[in-house]
Formats: sequence, C-alpha cells, structure tokens
Amino acid sequence: MLSSLTNFLFFLLFLNFHILSTQNHHPLDPLTPLELIQVQTIVKNHFSHNVSFHYVGLDEPEKSTILSLESNPYERIDTPYRRAFVIARVNGKSHQIIVDLSSNTTLCDKVYNGSGFPLLNFGEENAANKLACSYAPLIASIEKRGLKLEEVICMSFTIGWYGEEKSRRVVRVMCYYMDGTINLYMRPIEGITVTVDLDQMKIIGYRDRVMVPVPKADGTYYKRSNQSDLRRAVRDLGGPDLALDGHVLRWANWELHISFDMRAGLIISLASIYDPEKNEHRRVMYRGFISEVFVPYMDLTEEWYYRTFLDVGEYGFGLCTVPLVPLQDCPKNAVFMDGYFTLQDGSPGRIPNVFYIFERSARDVMFRHTELEIPGQTITEVRPEVSLVVRMVSTVGNYDYIVDWEIKQTGIIKVSVGLTGLLEVRGSTYTHKDQIQEEVYGTILAENTIGSHHDHFLIFNLDFDIDGDVNSFIKNNLQTVHLNRNTSHRKSYWRVKSEVAKTESDARVQLGSGASTELSIVNQNKKTKVGNYVGYRLVPGSVTGSLLSDDYYAQIRGGFTKYNVWVTPYNKSEKWAGGLYADQSRGDDGLPTWSSRNKDIEDKDIVLWYTLGFHHVPCQEDFPVMLVLSESFELQPTNFFEYNPVLKK
Amino acid sequence: MLSSLTNFLFFLLFLNFHILSTQNHHPLDPLTPLELIQVQTIVKNHFSHNVSFHYVGLDEPEKSTILSLESNPYERIDTPYRRAFVIARVNGKSHQIIVDLSSNTTLCDKVYNGSGFPLLNFGEENAANKLACSYAPLIASIEKRGLKLEEVICMSFTIGWYGEEKSRRVVRVMCYYMDGTINLYMRPIEGITVTVDLDQMKIIGYRDRVMVPVPKADGTYYKRSNQSDLRRAVRDLGGPDLALDGHVLRWANWELHISFDMRAGLIISLASIYDPEKNEHRRVMYRGFISEVFVPYMDLTEEWYYRTFLDVGEYGFGLCTVPLVPLQDCPKNAVFMDGYFTLQDGSPGRIPNVFYIFERSARDVMFRHTELEIPGQTITEVRPEVSLVVRMVSTVGNYDYIVDWEIKQTGIIKVSVGLTGLLEVRGSTYTHKDQIQEEVYGTILAENTIGSHHDHFLIFNLDFDIDGDVNSFIKNNLQTVHLNRNTSHRKSYWRVKSEVAKTESDARVQLGSGASTELSIVNQNKKTKVGNYVGYRLVPGSVTGSLLSDDYYAQIRGGFTKYNVWVTPYNKSEKWAGGLYADQSRGDDGLPTWSSRNKDIEDKDIVLWYTLGFHHVPCQEDFPVMLVLSESFELQPTNFFEYNPVLKK
Repeated sequence: MLSSLTNFLFFLLFLNFHILSTQNHHPLDPLTPLELIQVQTIVKNHFSHNVSFHYVGLDEPEKSTILSLESNPYERIDTPYRRAFVIARVNGKSHQIIVDLSSNTTLCDKVYNGSGFPLLNFGEENAANKLACSYAPLIASIEKRGLKLEEVICMSFTIGWYGEEKSRRVVRVMCYYMDGTINLYMRPIEGITVTVDLDQMKIIGYRDRVMVPVPKADGTYYKRSNQSDLRRAVRDLGGPDLALDGHVLRWANWELHISFDMRAGLIISLASIYDPEKNEHRRVMYRGFISEVFVPYMDLTEEWYYRTFLDVGEYGFGLCTVPLVPLQDCPKNAVFMDGYFTLQDGSPGRIPNVFYIFERSARDVMFRHTELEIPGQTITEVRPEVSLVVRMVSTVGNYDYIVDWEIKQTGIIKVSVGLTGLLEVRGSTYTHKDQIQEEVYGTILAENTIGSHHDHFLIFNLDFDIDGDVNSFIKNNLQTVHLNRNTSHRKSYWRVKSEVAKTESDARVQLGSGASTELSIVNQNKKTKVGNYVGYRLVPGSVTGSLLSDDYYAQIRGGFTKYNVWVTPYNKSEKWAGGLYADQSRGDDGLPTWSSRNKDIEDKDIVLWYTLGFHHVPCQEDFPVMLVLSESFELQPTNFFEYNPVLKK
Repeated sequence: MLSSLTNFLFFLLFLNFHILSTQNHHPLDPLTPLELIQVQTIVKNHFSHNVSFHYVGLDEPEKSTILSLESNPYERIDTPYRRAFVIARVNGKSHQIIVDLSSNTTLCDKVYNGSGFPLLNFGEENAANKLACSYAPLIASIEKRGLKLEEVICMSFTIGWYGEEKSRRVVRVMCYYMDGTINLYMRPIEGITVTVDLDQMKIIGYRDRVMVPVPKADGTYYKRSNQSDLRRAVRDLGGPDLALDGHVLRWANWELHISFDMRAGLIISLASIYDPEKNEHRRVMYRGFISEVFVPYMDLTEEWYYRTFLDVGEYGFGLCTVPLVPLQDCPKNAVFMDGYFTLQDGSPGRIPNVFYIFERSARDVMFRHTELEIPGQTITEVRPEVSLVVRMVSTVGNYDYIVDWEIKQTGIIKVSVGLTGLLEVRGSTYTHKDQIQEEVYGTILAENTIGSHHDHFLIFNLDFDIDGDVNSFIKNNLQTVHLNRNTSHRKSYWRVKSEVAKTESDARVQLGSGASTELSIVNQNKKTKVGNYVGYRLVPGSVTGSLLSDDYYAQIRGGFTKYNVWVTPYNKSEKWAGGLYADQSRGDDGLPTWSSRNKDIEDKDIVLWYTLGFHHVPCQEDFPVMLVLSESFELQPTNFFEYNPVLKK
C-alpha cells in the first residue's frame, strides 16, 4: 500500500546560486529561491516550536507605490519594500507572518483564531496518507475485499463544513487501486472512511461501511506508449491529410459531403465518424447549413426604420460568398473548392475559392493529465488537438460573415461565425457626444458618424441522424433538490431530470432564461454497452434572443428568433426558417408556422434548429473596419462512443 | 455617379468544358456549370416571356434514397434523379420550377401567389442602382449637397414588411460617397429615399427629407497598401518576438508583468497597451488572477457528501501546477518560466516550465472585408490574427486545469480554461443502466463506474485600471421600447440604458437570467475625442451559476458563486474570494462578506470579480480520461481607442 505525493521530491530545487541574484527585480516579481530560503530561516528563528509552512508569497508593496514607480521609473526614491506573507501552523495555531527581507525580520506575527484553515501542504498530506496506509483496520478492509495491498494508493481530501460548531483540522483519506492501470481515479475503493487529524497527525475516525466492486482496470489506460497501435483518430501534427473525392471529404476519422448552394452557401451532408470499437463509420448528421440570417437595425429614422434584413432569403448567403485569399484568409496547407451559381439570365457564374479546407492546430489539446500520485513514476500524457476546418466568407454588402465548420477527431463538430467588415453607419450632424440630447439609436464613432444598434441572428438547420434517422430530442434539466437536515449532511444538490420532447411544442427552448438544461439528440433504439442512449449534445455558444416584441412586423418575419432551439420532423421542403419567399415576407411560411402544427417528434427523423445571436452596440474600435466579433457552438458526442474516442483500448 | 455590382462580372465563368463532366457525381453534389446551363436552356424554352432567374439549386433526391444508396453503394438499382429547383420571375409572377436534367424537361411549374418575393439577383439590383443614378431629382439632391456625382455609389436595400395589405416588389436605393476613401459605408448620404419597383424597373417614390453632413473620409481607410507605414500593432506571422525582462513581458503592443504564486498560480500585473494615436502605453489592468475554484460534487453517499472543494485555498492552484511538456503542451516557438514555492519545512521547491509563453495563430483573422461595390476595383483586406498566450496547467489530483491568458494585438485579453484529466468516479455494484432504480448522482460510464455530477466555478480577480485607477462599473441594459403605431412604422426596438453602479450592491449581477446587459469598466474622467468614456467590456463566456441553495453550508463557503459578477473597491488584503483560510471555512471571510458592506464604487479604484462556471454531467467519452471541456471570457476595448487599433491612420 503506497502513500501518494512522495513524488513531489522531483520538484526539489537544485539551487543554482549564480543565477539567483536578488538584484534588479521588479517589485512585483515572485520571491526567488534565495528569498524563500531567507524567509524560511527568519520564520524558523522566530519560533521555538516546529513550524509547518502553508503559504509563502510576495507581500506586495502598496499599489500607490507601484503606480508611482511605473510613472517615474528613474526617480526611485522610495524603494518599495521586499516582503513575504507567510501562513504557518505552529503549535496547533495558524500564524500570519509578515517577513521583511531587507531587514531580515518578522514585522508582524498574528495568530488567526477564526474559522477555517490554511492551504494543505504536501508534507502533511503525504504523512496522512502514509498513516492510513499502515493502519491495521484499513489493511484488514483491503484484505477483506481480496485486493493487493501493494496496489493501493491513498490520497487526502479536504472535508468542507457541514454546520458543526467546532472544526478540527482533518482530512478524509480515500483509497484507489492500481493493479493493471495507472489510472487510479477510475478504480476507487468505495465504502471506507478514514479521518485523519492533521495537527496531531493521527487517525481519529474509521469506518468500513459497505463493499462495492472496484471498477475493472481494462479500458482505463491512457498512455500512448502502452497502446498497441495508434488508431486513425490519433494523429500527429502534420500537413493536410485529407481526401477529396468530388465533394466527399475524408479526413482522420470523419467522412462528409460538402456542397455549395446559391442561397445557403456551404451545406454539410452525411457526416459520419469512424468508430474503431464497432469498426464502422457511424452517421451523426444528415445535413447542416445556415437556413436564414435576420439582421434588424434599431434606428427609427425615416430612411432607416425598414432595415430588418433576411440576408439568406433576400440577398443569398451563397450568392454573396467571396473568393478566399490564400495566406490571408487561410493558411498554406489548404485545399480550395469553387462554387457555381446562376445569373439573372440563367447562365452560370463561378465563385473561385469559395470554400477553403485546412487543418487547424490552435495549440490546444484534446486531453492531458500529469500523474504525480504513483510512487516512482511521473506520467504526463498530452494529445495536441488538430482539427479540420471548412471555411467560407459571405460578404453581404458591407458585412463579412466568416463561417467555419470544424470537425474534430474527438467527434466534436464546432461551428463558428465571425462578424467583420464595415458597419452600416448613419450620417449625423453631431460631432461630439455632449451635443446629443435625443435618442440616436447608436454610438457616435467619429465626427458625423453614428454606428447603429442592430442584431445578427443566424439560424442553423441541423438534421441529426444519430446512428440512423429515428432520433429523439432530450432535455436534461439540472434541478436543485432541497433536503431535510435529518436525512443528510447536505441541504441541497442538483440532479438530472430527463425529459423526452413528445411534440414540437415540447422542443421550443429559450436559452438564457435561467434554467440549466442540457439539450441532446439521442437514438432511443441504440444503447451503449452499459445502457446509455447514444447521442450528441448541443453546446450553445450564444443564448441571445430577439428583444423585439412578438407583434412587430419584422419580428413576425424573423419569428424563428423567438426561441433559440426548435425541433421539427424532417420534411424535405422545410429548409428556410424565414420562408421560401423571404423578401417582404409576412411570416406565413417558415419555422414558427411549421412548428405550430405541433407534430410528434419522438422516435422520428428530426431536425434541430439553433439560432446563434449577436446584439451589436458598436464602439469606436469598430471604426472604420470592425474587429471580428465571434460566437460558436458545438455538437459533442455524449455517450455516442463507448469511451474516449481518441484512445486505443 | 456609379451604380454598384457592375463588378459581379469578375465572377463570370470561363467554361473549361473538359473538366466539367457530369459523370460520377454524388447525388448531393451541387449543380455543375454544364448542368446550370442545361437548366437555363430548359427554363427559357419553357416560357415565351423573359425569364429572370432568382434561385437555382439542386432538388435533391429523397432522403430515403440517399440513405439506401449510402448503405448499399454497390447496388445502385434506383439511380437517384438529378433535378434542379428553380425560382424565376416571369411576367411579374414568381414561378417554382422543377427541372429534370436526365429527361431535359420541366416536371412542374407552379406560380406562387402568397406573400413575399424570392432572392434578389445581381442583375436587377444593378439595374435599380443604375436607374437611381440617372434620376434627375437624385442628381439634383446630390448637387444641392455640394457633392461630386462621380464619387457617389448607389446600393439596393430590401424593405421588409410593415403591415401593408399589398406589397409590390420594391427596394430602397441608398447612396454613399467615396471622394478620398474606398470605405463607402462610412460615408452615407442621409435623408434621401429612392424607391424602385423591381418588376417594372422604375422609380416609384422619391423624397429628399433632410440634409445631414456626410462623415469625412479621413480615418476611414483600411487598405494596408495605402498606409504610410505599419505600426507595431500590425505584424506578420512569424516566430516568437517577445522580450522577457525578468518577469516583465513585452510583445507587440502589450507590456505586462507575469508572476507565480503558490496559491494562485499565474498572476498578471500592470498590463498596458501601446496607443499609437497618443504615442504612449495605456494601463488596462493592475492585476488579474484566479482567486478561488469551487468544486462541489452532487453525490450524497456517506463517503462522498462532503466533497465540496475550494481548490485554490485548500490545495493551492500554484502548488498543483505541473511542468509543461515542450511540443505537447505547447508549440516549438515558446519561452518557459520556472516557478518557486515553499515546502512544509520552509525550504524552496522549483516547478520547472511552470509557464509557457507562445505565439498563437489559430488561423483566425483580426478583421477582413471584400469590397465589390466600387466599379473597376476589387478590394480584399484581411489581417490574420496572431496573439500571445501565457499558459499554465494546474493538476489538482485527478483534474487538470489548463489556464491560458491570451493577449491580442486588437487590445483584447482572452482567458480560457480547459478542464481535462481524470474524473472523480464512484465505484458501484451496477454494470448496466437498466439495473439502476435509485438516484446514483451521476452517469454510468463503464461497469461498476459512476461519473458523479459536479460543478467547477473559477472566480477571477480582475483589477482594472483603465487609464488610471479611478474607474467605474457600467451596466448597459438593452431595453425593449414599445411604440405607438401612430408615431412610427415600427412597434418596437431596443435601446441602451446605461446605469453606473454607485455601490457594491448595484454591481452584483446574475448572468443568464434573461436580461441583456453589457458590462463595462470605464474611466469617467477620460473621454475619446467624440466624447465616449474610455473603457473595457467584460464579454462573459459562461453564464453558469451555482444551483445549490443559499442556506447550504457548501454554498455559504462558495458564496461567491451566488452572482457571476461582483465589484468591490480595491483593497490589498481582499484577494481570496473564498476567504484566506479556505479549508473548512464557514463563509465569514471572502467576497460576499466584503460586498455586504455595500461601499461606494463609483469613481474609485475598483476590482471586478467574474466567475466562469461549468456544470459537468459526465458522459462515456470522459472515460477513462476526459476530453477537454473549455470555456473562456474576453475583456474587450470598448471606446478605449479612438478607432480600430490595428489600423494605421
């Protein structure tokens, strides 16, 4: 049986004195190793008892001193002090000590008598774990469970506060089991409570309440070096490695079809991901595209009041796409695709470089862990993230929408929208804000220039086909449960209450209304081995909704913004959320009309509609060209795979 | 006077017939140029009148056909049809036409008599603009304003619906002025309304209501080639180009101090940004760091109920940092920094590579625009985004927190937190979900393994000093205004109602409660040239709050999660939102206590506290190691600069 944290020794300092000069440091620099040693010496000399250090940090100079130094760097008359703030436990009490490094003295030593205790330190955690490891009743409990003592690892957990009058400085020690894995956290030994008093360093409570099977080691490994081979999903950084067969795109574990439409722009179809456990590609989405974009301005002046555009249905998001510029709009390792559309006279036009497909490494990781709790080993596993992006830019006159569909090896589909380009501004007589006494419906950005308040709402048509086209929409509501003090130490917790949307009205969701709800599309006919429905979760990035009143004409036309999420049964003809004839439409066609039929949507081929919204209050940084404002959402596999999809079992 | 959209000709197709074979395409592929020509021919032959094409797209095969082909690719018995869906205007009516390409026929031609009109096409927009350009009253209005006709550009705007009984197919034509700029959108010619009937292609309404100054051209340019020289802020992609002078970091237009603390981990101080307009560095933040992390689990079993951790105050977020791994945790072009802390006996320990500083290019852009409205010119300006990241990873036992402080040349500070590592799981007798009839407080992830529901709340201490330390907190509420039909065509719009927080209670904000509010820190003593207060805006990435009841002990200890945002007057000693002595604390120290004094915060040195929260309902993809779950927030300059800070005036 091993106690954890012995490993912290790898941190121990090899003091390299000649580089540790205390000269010329900034007054906000952290304490140097030499200074830390100096603090240790001063504090130890200060007490006759043993000292246990819990916190040592810079006691920074006054903000006013720092600010005056910053403004007058060459007149350092009042040299800022160099002090340490220390919290130490001495003789069972918490001391707050200020150490002055220039005078080598303690300026202040105050005993803290209030409630609560300082940071734990590694030394005492380690001691507590060791104590538990050699405790006969615990050893008996381990043996009773048929577990090998030498494979057990103990760890200390802080215990919070549950209304007790008096607290002792204690931790609970938890045990985990290795025996074939390094992932001890997946193998808790349940039912045992060991309570250790840290000041006395002795066990003051022990209970072995119940025996629970230790989860098996199989499938818990996450080290790359121990995986027999890397699956397709685990790839190193590199150049583009995609296959484009006509419009069918294959990359890493993904396969999908990408297409151009003069109204929608980019259309994603038939997206499926390879599941090595099942050795097959599994369908995630049948279709995904931007169905409509609603842009109402908030300016009531006569020449402006009508500006409440439906960019997709009036101007054509595809028609307005622009050729992307190599090395500017996208990196070198990219693949282009052209788009074709029809001119007024029916003849075809070409938009070169309408899509740009490239690998992205934003220096993020798929997962990582550093394991320091296993004696004699330091394990660090990191998988850098590399994803594939299909990008288009639609420039509807002044505004540029950058739309990225990003597929990740983890199974995530991320969609990002960046707004940039040029604002629609109103000319004005005003040259300074102080002149403005009336409502001008915007921000003064420059002389004679008002940047008008407006919104952008992009609604996505997301036709999920999770392992087939018979899907359901689930709302997992996180509900607070209040408890009677007599039944639990706790007064409240939250649980997940799942609700299947039976009809379209059950599936209209206003996000950002205070409720904590996770939204998923699942296949109720397909379960994982342990019995969860396979599914994907919508992780919304924006919860913005329209602020216009329901009876307002523009809001009737852009009525799909009333809810952030809608679900309808799949119907080939129901593509355009603002209606097929959007120009001067009156709201009699489109998503709200379809949804009002309130059809059944459980165990059907269903489409999820999600609106990404922006309220835009312009600021001077948007003039004369807007910095990108961006929002995104993700579709995340949720019990879709049996386990982490970038691990080889 | 020029009409716009003449430029669309650059799109015109040079037909390269030998590559345009219709063979072997996927049934979802967009129509090829040859197919588009075929559609044009069929439709034109179908009508005796002139045809104006408004939409041509694939009329895709039935989903069932596609899905059966996908599952049986080698038995293509029922070849899916190849059809086009066309919307055309013929003789003043909208026709919906289905064209079958294999039989060269129109299968269906339906006149649409409902409300609304199809997409505009470039041809008619161009014709409408040309018509306006040559309209004598408009020419007179331009001359009356003393503007040069040849510098005016006209554009067509769709007009929406305002309750009229009958609609004609009309657009409003708007005029813009160049004369020294290519940024026509910044130079609207206000007060003129030109209404054009698109079907008759004639002007049916004209009004010159009022004369308003045209905003000046100066400062509206955004092309790189016309800027006299590039300022520091505009840099090309490249290797790391940072100067590290001790702990003072200089990169691009930023300067800041970075430090290590054994409790907080990374501390950012004295962040300032160069303003080329003022030729000086301007302070943005005095300080920024993670003050506390609250992690309550939702499992009531005896060995679990107490798990409601304060990771910063109990374990030390700095103490738990781990050495970062080159090429895994961060890219090649990076700079490392070590951290030093104090062991139990007071001697110093070293954490090598505790911070990793690197340039990030995620293939995003700072801004872009493609301008097609200026005859004879195609302007595309794109500025790729390059930012600097300071990264640390704190591994509190099983969980790894990846914390990035990212500074952007646009003035934005972005903070991202990624959660990864290993879940805290509970051993269980269950091996399948169907066995579970009781509340298990989590998700079954594998046999005998329950992933417990829990939260992560990270609270950031953000001591803004916007151009000095006397700052104020502003809530800009976006309020819906309802209008009387008699006074406006509109029934509602939203406006911004600004509210200065006078005392601490005014500044407690629960995000995600339905209100649309933008939160800013401003300096009320500093204004831009046009009179806006200089400021920075908090753009929250997560609006998640605690679901625990206020009277629950753990919630009292983590009481800072009651609101997402708090503002307090700066006080050097008020650093730790969960109290200085967090272990077994009782809520008598910390942010809620400080805020309850309700001190004045207007025109004071103030600190903004923001909590980034995650509710975590584990799923099987989190087993045996978690894919990164990430959230971020941004601090954005908002009227801090006179104009877009990456442009040279």
